[in-house]
Amino acid sequence: MNVKKNITPQKENFSEWYQDVVKEAELAENSEVRGCGIVRPYGYKIWELIKAELSRLIEETGVENVYFPIFIPMENLEAEKDHVEGFSPELAVVTHGGGEKLVNKLAVRPTSETSMYKTYAKWIQSYKDLPLRLNQWNNVVRWEKRPRPFLRWSEFLWQEGHTVFAKQAEAEAEMWQMLDVYEKTYQFMALPVMKGKKSEAEKFAGAVMTTTAEIMVKDGKAIQGGTSHYLGTNFAKVFDVTYLGDDGERHFCHQNSWGFSWRSVGAVIMAHGDDNGLRLPPNIAPIQIVIVPIYKDENKQEVIAYAEELKKELTPYRVKLDARDGMTPGFKFNHWEVKGVPVRLEIGQKEKDNNEITIFRRDNETKIKINRSELKNMIPELFKEIHISLYDQAKDFSEKHIHRIESIDEIKDQVGFFEASWCESKESEKLLKEKFSMVSRVLPFANMEKESKNKKCFITGAEAKHDWLFAKSY
Amino acid sequence: MNVKKNITPQKENFSEWYQDVVKEAELAENSEVRGCGIVRPYGYKIWELIKAELSRLIEETGVENVYFPIFIPMENLEAEKDHVEGFSPELAVVTHGGGEKLVNKLAVRPTSETSMYKTYAKWIQSYKDLPLRLNQWNNVVRWEKRPRPFLRWSEFLWQEGHTVFAKQAEAEAEMWQMLDVYEKTYQFMALPVMKGKKSEAEKFAGAVMTTTAEIMVKDGKAIQGGTSHYLGTNFAKVFDVTYLGDDGERHFCHQNSWGFSWRSVGAVIMAHGDDNGLRLPPNIAPIQIVIVPIYKDENKQEVIAYAEELKKELTPYRVKLDARDGMTPGFKFNHWEVKGVPVRLEIGQKEKDNNEITIFRRDNETKIKINRSELKNMIPELFKEIHISLYDQAKDFSEKHIHRIESIDEIKDQVGFFEASWCESKESEKLLKEKFSMVSRVLPFANMEKESKNKKCFITGAEAKHDWLFAKSY
Repeated sequence: MNVKKNITPQKENFSEWYQDVVKEAELAENSEVRGCGIVRPYGYKIWELIKAELSRLIEETGVENVYFPIFIPMENLEAEKDHVEGFSPELAVVTHGGGEKLVNKLAVRPTSETSMYKTYAKWIQSYKDLPLRLNQWNNVVRWEKRPRPFLRWSEFLWQEGHTVFAKQAEAEAEMWQMLDVYEKTYQFMALPVMKGKKSEAEKFAGAVMTTTAEIMVKDGKAIQGGTSHYLGTNFAKVFDVTYLGDDGERHFCHQNSWGFSWRSVGAVIMAHGDDNGLRLPPNIAPIQIVIVPIYKDENKQEVIAYAEELKKELTPYRVKLDARDGMTPGFKFNHWEVKGVPVRLEIGQKEKDNNEITIFRRDNETKIKINRSELKNMIPELFKEIHISLYDQAKDFSEKHIHRIESIDEIKDQVGFFEASWCESKESEKLLKEKFSMVSRVLPFANMEKESKNKKCFITGAEAKHDWLFAKSY
Repeated sequence: MNVKKNITPQKENFSEWYQDVVKEAELAENSEVRGCGIVRPYGYKIWELIKAELSRLIEETGVENVYFPIFIPMENLEAEKDHVEGFSPELAVVTHGGGEKLVNKLAVRPTSETSMYKTYAKWIQSYKDLPLRLNQWNNVVRWEKRPRPFLRWSEFLWQEGHTVFAKQAEAEAEMWQMLDVYEKTYQFMALPVMKGKKSEAEKFAGAVMTTTAEIMVKDGKAIQGGTSHYLGTNFAKVFDVTYLGDDGERHFCHQNSWGFSWRSVGAVIMAHGDDNGLRLPPNIAPIQIVIVPIYKDENKQEVIAYAEELKKELTPYRVKLDARDGMTPGFKFNHWEVKGVPVRLEIGQKEKDNNEITIFRRDNETKIKINRSELKNMIPELFKEIHISLYDQAKDFSEKHIHRIESIDEIKDQVGFFEASWCESKESEKLLKEKFSMVSRVLPFANMEKESKNKKCFITGAEAKHDWLFAKSY
């Protein structure tokens, strides 16, 4: 236990470490509604900063935002066979409204395919109405038996894009395009992702193909960072989403959906955090720079006045001056380290007299001294360095923890992802799950066009076309 | 009927006019879930632009954003007597989750006082934790028997601020401060508001005092544009929200809540719109400038190329070039007029040859010709003029339709608000409601410190302290 910081070391118990960081960094807490969480200002601001960047990137591709109701008639949800099978165990159901029992029960949306596509059918008449590319930022509910902050709450915030095309090729191209948008968003968060497609068993309920951006976190497990689905004409056939082609015939539309949620905040915590708490890249840090003044009674005013000047100088950045009374500088250092503030300025009498500033970097826990005159100009460069350093650390960790294996027995208790040639059968994936609580995570994009290294499946010995990645996951 | 635009004239049937504009401007439509609406991209963008400004203003006052669950245990809702009486007829209730019947039923939040304040009680220990000022942007559900787009849907988007103070005076000051924030947001939308306090019967269920920003729309009815409540210690006593004072004693906290929803979009439509459709102030127009090229086959390329150059020149603004084929310029003019685009540039061969641009203003339906070189520099000034013109029109309309009356009989079928000296009794307000479907809207701020003009109540003849405003409302 890191006593000063109330944080269990990662190696001792990663799950407890995560709970401790979420609590001590004041990110979130459980609510009295089982499975639902409360996101506190510091945690919510991280989400808002991620969201702003993702929103910008989505809109840049020409997508527009809309809002559809939170309630879905149960009969809509039941219309697509695979979809209802996937989601019905997780539904919250409204049976009473306005003091009366409802004739038709309503589900709280777990995702909005079945809420939106009947309306799409009305909006889309001819090929001239295509493509239709819309997105929603909203809340969805999927009942969780084993909740975990950010990663698995019964209610979560996300965006869900729902797009419609005339041709399969256009839809597939957009599916990959939006996966790239998710990758860029994770790059903004200094996190590398492994992009590719999901197995038949792991794909979205109702999709033809699911692509995913997977992240490895510090206990070697995977977090699904965002998914982009090609739905084919599965939903189009159910909800009659058709267009009149320039050939004068009616055709079923090809559809995609893609989603990214605040579990990304969980990924940031788990992939960047260390035994001292959170480590945030400047892009998504609610406070990018904290100024801690170090003073005694006799020079308090003088030092704080100097600190305030510096704060003003740094105005365009998100800066906090921690001038709280009755706390030692050491206590404050700990406090802001736990919260992952990327840069700390320490300002005491010596710094003031020498026109110096002591800079502490949270990413590598190093200190440097600079002349005050350099401060403002160096910040963009410093932020860039910190971003790259965090990205490189996460990338190194990922690369070191991908183990090539030829047989399932090699997994043992190794930590990380496993790359193996795989036959892609449902039975083999079931067996892996039973034995190691592990499923396939992704067929990496780079491996899609390549033959497998070992032509034989690492589980069954049957023919294996491709090399997949496997891991335990959150 | 405005045949070209499919819009019923306001004077013929205002309610139908509203429905027509919502439909023809592609703002929103009803969903298959009764009472819930679908907000289309154009309507949603208006809301996003309003939201961005309000969010900025709220954060400027030091408030931070959080997220609390959508579900509220029924027992919490039932804890504050007035509150549950006010909201229980409008609740949506979740009885099943994750495939099982719930032991404790959950309400979908109609507002979050009873969701948040138990947690506040935990967070607040001493006076050092105060003030606590948090806000949520979320969706809430209040079952509607008579839904109306934006103004009354069973589900709506809004923000709800929930703040806590040690002293009553601080809480009351913030209540007025946040009402001012709402007023500024409406000014951003070129709408004047009437600020003041609500009557006992009309105040928020559970509040000590409700303040409101009321807007008069073009049929003379009122829209409640936003409310800011002083809750006193009502909820603090129920949820045990207390603080240890510097006197060493525990005290109940004083609380506020304040909310502003997408009904503001309804107010914009109804207060600015005319028989040709929507009229938007540039601040909240999804498209601020539309360029309509006017060409024949032989000069099409040349004219469109010129229009594209102009578009590029206007980059910082939200500009649309409508180069759709197979539609006449007249059709396009109508289309964008209905959608309320504030500025239209008409570009034909003559304009190109003469280096001219024809500018059409939607707010006053006038055209001017300018030299191309003036264009970019004149836009900020033009937007300002349009904003002021729309504001002044709304202000004039409001002022002309406030009727001073001394007796209830003067109401008759006059359109607008009625100013009258009132005794503030519940019985008199009930009578007014029965007779004219009208209640008190607001005791204007300016009248709070003034004695009533007529000392006698316009309904009962009893003693009247103040002059209130009365109106029918949405």
